[in-house]
Amino acid sequence: MVILGVDPGSRLTGFGIVRKEGSSLIHIDNGLIKLNEKEPMTKRLVVLFREVQKIIKTFSPEILALENIFYSKNIQSTLKLGHARGSIIVAAGLLGLKIFEYTPLAVKQAITGYGGAGKEQIQKMIKTLLGLPQTAEENASDALAVAICHAHSEKINKLIP
Amino acid sequence: MVILGVDPGSRLTGFGIVRKEGSSLIHIDNGLIKLNEKEPMTKRLVVLFREVQKIIKTFSPEILALENIFYSKNIQSTLKLGHARGSIIVAAGLLGLKIFEYTPLAVKQAITGYGGAGKEQIQKMIKTLLGLPQTAEENASDALAVAICHAHSEKINKLIP
Repeated sequence: MVILGVDPGSRLTGFGIVRKEGSSLIHIDNGLIKLNEKEPMTKRLVVLFREVQKIIKTFSPEILALENIFYSKNIQSTLKLGHARGSIIVAAGLLGLKIFEYTPLAVKQAITGYGGAGKEQIQKMIKTLLGLPQTAEENASDALAVAICHAHSEKINKLIP
Repeated sequence: MVILGVDPGSRLTGFGIVRKEGSSLIHIDNGLIKLNEKEPMTKRLVVLFREVQKIIKTFSPEILALENIFYSKNIQSTLKLGHARGSIIVAAGLLGLKIFEYTPLAVKQAITGYGGAGKEQIQKMIKTLLGLPQTAEENASDALAVAICHAHSEKINKLIP
């Protein structure tokens, strides 16, 4: 099973792809989709949609995993994030992916075993878990984290008959 | 010039289409896109995307006009609205429409001449302005209002050299 994790942002969107084979997790790719904030919103959202579809067509994931959002600075930033998420969800939904959401706490617990881990700690754990040659960029690392969280939840789901 | 106004919602999205010919405004169509809240979010957003593209392909508007959002109950409802808006913006952006946003105040002023108008008053004004046989549904009426607001702004833009 191939899982695409995405960490959406209005400027930087991280993505991470892992393949689950039995009990092992194999890192396939990770990176950033960079949007030019000087471009109009419409153009940015169309670029995001196209880039996400390009990634899906390249790596054929069956699952898109995203983090839930519970905190935001203000309405405008929540709305911006909502626009980016809507664009990503539609891009994946049109290509038939199933979409799962996880709380930030569930993602942290899946990676480090507890909910109080800091950003750097998570980046290091992701590097170790997937045997990356170097630490992934922050947003890409967060995207890998939510993909791994989905892989672990699948395992748990299967353990419970 | 054909203008598509949209009033997005997570359950009911209103749309309204007007054509501007010289100084007159002609009503083309209006209606509601109804989403089933029992369906998963992904499916709803994909349906919304497809319905908006169907409307655009039917009526060939060059412009999408939307209201800005400045108030919301909470993060979850803002996020839902952001998802719907993102889906609509991408649907229109992929088909080459230009997208304009107007404040609720600008929309009210464009319809009634002042910012304190109530919902019913706006519905009645829309009916009169466009010579509708009956009052449009609330969300569809709001969608027509933002389309008219764009048509009026265009007129103002042209008056200023």
